[in-house]
Amino acid sequence: MPDLRAAGLAIFRAALEAGDPARLIPAAVRLEGAHLVVHDRAFDLERVRRLLVVGAGKASGAMAQTLERLLGERIADGLVVVKEGALYPTRRIRQVEASHPIPDERGLRAAEGIVELARSAGPEDLVLCLISGGGSALTPLPVAGVGLEEKRRVTRLLLEAGATINELNAVRKHLSRIKGGQLARAAAPAPVVSLLLSDVIGDPLDVIASGPTAPDDSTYVGALEILGRFGLLEAVPASVRRHLETGARREIPETPKAGDPLFARVLNVVIGNNSLVVERAVEEARRHGLTPLLLSRSLQGEAREVGRAFASFVKEVVAFRRPIPPPACLIAGGETTVTVRGDGRGGRCQELCLAAALELQDLPGILVLAAGTDGTDGPTDAAGALADGETVRRARALGLDPRRALGENDSYTFFHALGDLVVTGATRTNLMDLYLLLISEGG
Amino acid sequence: MPDLRAAGLAIFRAALEAGDPARLIPAAVRLEGAHLVVHDRAFDLERVRRLLVVGAGKASGAMAQTLERLLGERIADGLVVVKEGALYPTRRIRQVEASHPIPDERGLRAAEGIVELARSAGPEDLVLCLISGGGSALTPLPVAGVGLEEKRRVTRLLLEAGATINELNAVRKHLSRIKGGQLARAAAPAPVVSLLLSDVIGDPLDVIASGPTAPDDSTYVGALEILGRFGLLEAVPASVRRHLETGARREIPETPKAGDPLFARVLNVVIGNNSLVVERAVEEARRHGLTPLLLSRSLQGEAREVGRAFASFVKEVVAFRRPIPPPACLIAGGETTVTVRGDGRGGRCQELCLAAALELQDLPGILVLAAGTDGTDGPTDAAGALADGETVRRARALGLDPRRALGENDSYTFFHALGDLVVTGATRTNLMDLYLLLISEGG
Repeated sequence: MPDLRAAGLAIFRAALEAGDPARLIPAAVRLEGAHLVVHDRAFDLERVRRLLVVGAGKASGAMAQTLERLLGERIADGLVVVKEGALYPTRRIRQVEASHPIPDERGLRAAEGIVELARSAGPEDLVLCLISGGGSALTPLPVAGVGLEEKRRVTRLLLEAGATINELNAVRKHLSRIKGGQLARAAAPAPVVSLLLSDVIGDPLDVIASGPTAPDDSTYVGALEILGRFGLLEAVPASVRRHLETGARREIPETPKAGDPLFARVLNVVIGNNSLVVERAVEEARRHGLTPLLLSRSLQGEAREVGRAFASFVKEVVAFRRPIPPPACLIAGGETTVTVRGDGRGGRCQELCLAAALELQDLPGILVLAAGTDGTDGPTDAAGALADGETVRRARALGLDPRRALGENDSYTFFHALGDLVVTGATRTNLMDLYLLLISEGG
Repeated sequence: MPDLRAAGLAIFRAALEAGDPARLIPAAVRLEGAHLVVHDRAFDLERVRRLLVVGAGKASGAMAQTLERLLGERIADGLVVVKEGALYPTRRIRQVEASHPIPDERGLRAAEGIVELARSAGPEDLVLCLISGGGSALTPLPVAGVGLEEKRRVTRLLLEAGATINELNAVRKHLSRIKGGQLARAAAPAPVVSLLLSDVIGDPLDVIASGPTAPDDSTYVGALEILGRFGLLEAVPASVRRHLETGARREIPETPKAGDPLFARVLNVVIGNNSLVVERAVEEARRHGLTPLLLSRSLQGEAREVGRAFASFVKEVVAFRRPIPPPACLIAGGETTVTVRGDGRGGRCQELCLAAALELQDLPGILVLAAGTDGTDGPTDAAGALADGETVRRARALGLDPRRALGENDSYTFFHALGDLVVTGATRTNLMDLYLLLISEGG
């Protein structure tokens, strides 16, 4: 029987490498003589006065490092904000760390610096943006008169009221000076090239890092309607309501919309997404002698329920050689969510694995691997976990109670005790999760 | 574009026919001269004094009708209890209706009649049992001193405390005079042949209809431990605790265990299960020009989350021609569950479809069908529902709010208004659910 654990980890590592900006940036951006060629456009760097780099996101430090290796001294200045611990040495582009997912003052100051730098750009300059998931929380830049804490309070109220992520973002974009295309507006009239790593299903430009260089289709009026719908007009801080009402009266500018002439000078290019990750996993699974079957690159839903569904797919291969005969590797990408009910420590991938393990007890020759490509699954230092038919038995022998661990959202403690966490540290990328279901022949 | 709706319904109908006892009983039981041949055993009916038929379950009326067509006047007597409305005319086998899923007095009297008939059998008689899902609730037969209402109270307390179905069944079998092999014991020393339609993943004989003719591995001591674990020893009716304690002191017999000599004369044959349904769907999909892919026959989990996962699979086929290119039909079987939070009307299949519809808005050329093979999805008169890319738009045009309907578990009202329920009436079978994801070429 092949070593499924080794194969699973090798497939995950190969997928991470496929998502590394060190590969993706040279594939998207190249120098041809003095021309910087991006997508179908060429920028003559000899006619560019200053090449400025700004950016934010979990992988933006690694992006900055790669870009600097490519462009070197052609970069006049740069400022990128990254999650604590995800700094990658650069010489010309300044990198600063800030808090994620709860924004802090360091992020605010960095966001101010980024908008300043963008604003300093003239028509003969070129602004390169390096955007990746997490960029929104890393660049909290509330409008004048609204504090960080007040903005956080609005977020909390909307979440508790059951607002969707789109509703939440519509309000937040209208309390920000950088989100919803406003970074692109700050850079105007300079041309802007945004290179994006997408951590959102379908790669919507206005959602990735809250779309700092993308047209926004939400409005001040809409933001007020959303607060009204949830009965929050009185509950939000007065400064927030005042700002939105001023915007609704058109006394301050709206976020830039599609069709705004400023976007004629903006090029947004998604240089990596979850497709890369799952397609690379398909190749690598084949290299390990496993027949790959790609189920989805847009998986979402409650982690434990997805884990149970995965277990039923594993059982089908083992018992009935469907949908494909073993040795096989079923592959999916996407990002699940966890409804937190307990006080434990864990993350969506670890919880998915724990739920799957409970359904796969004593089944030999199988392995489930779930891990986040950013190396951080929930508020833990693990990327994810591994589970197989022995997981529950081994856990019980250690005095662990798998059902209780699942009930208390304590998957980290569980897999930590077993030594079955997938730990990568910061990964240089952030392209959602990879889910692997490995089944060996005669498993 | 093919008519996906017609194709989906045709596949579901074909799958239902594959599960009809009119096919399954003749495939499992045949007359060779005067011999009744079941599986690898032959019973010489000329040496059988009385052929008795007992049974319980949603499909047991249809099973009785088929069996009577096969054996006719060879049947000396029979009594089968079915869910209200699922009577199928028979002449020698008596059929009675009872309440499901909440047991009633009619079920209790029928269960008494069944045990009486079984007890009347001698060594020269042959008892045929016709068991299908729902048989447990249709034959409530509490031990002496415990009332129906008291037994229901125990069930409720255990469910509220978070007991698993196995824990619940361990307690219930020890408060019953028919479950957990006790029907087989009542029939001893007569030989018993049980024909079972399985509505449980994996076809465990001790779980289907609570295993009236199967060995039971739970115990009185275990039942008390379970109540203790959930802190319910004081909360359950005194009569219940007294009975379990009497059993734990071995003053009354345990349920029969594996190895009990009585099972040497018992033959349990699963004549149909969800595999039949999904395999027939695979064939029928192919007949409609759709490439079939069977994902699982053991799907479980929260219905709305399974629906979201299904939507991601549909999108993958549409956008990336994975895991297979269209025209395609992804197929799964199993049975999901619904955590009821709202006051609406619905069922697991309808809720699955509603959740999928929300993720598939405006996607052309696709169809999701989810339906229960027993024709009853939750406490509704529908088997399930159909959803496609137009579902949400059409619903909004009618003034319906899909998210609210999902939030209130009101999927029946929703699909009823759209005319998108799958309605079959009683179906003659009960083999869990069928889930179909149809994607047309160029969808």
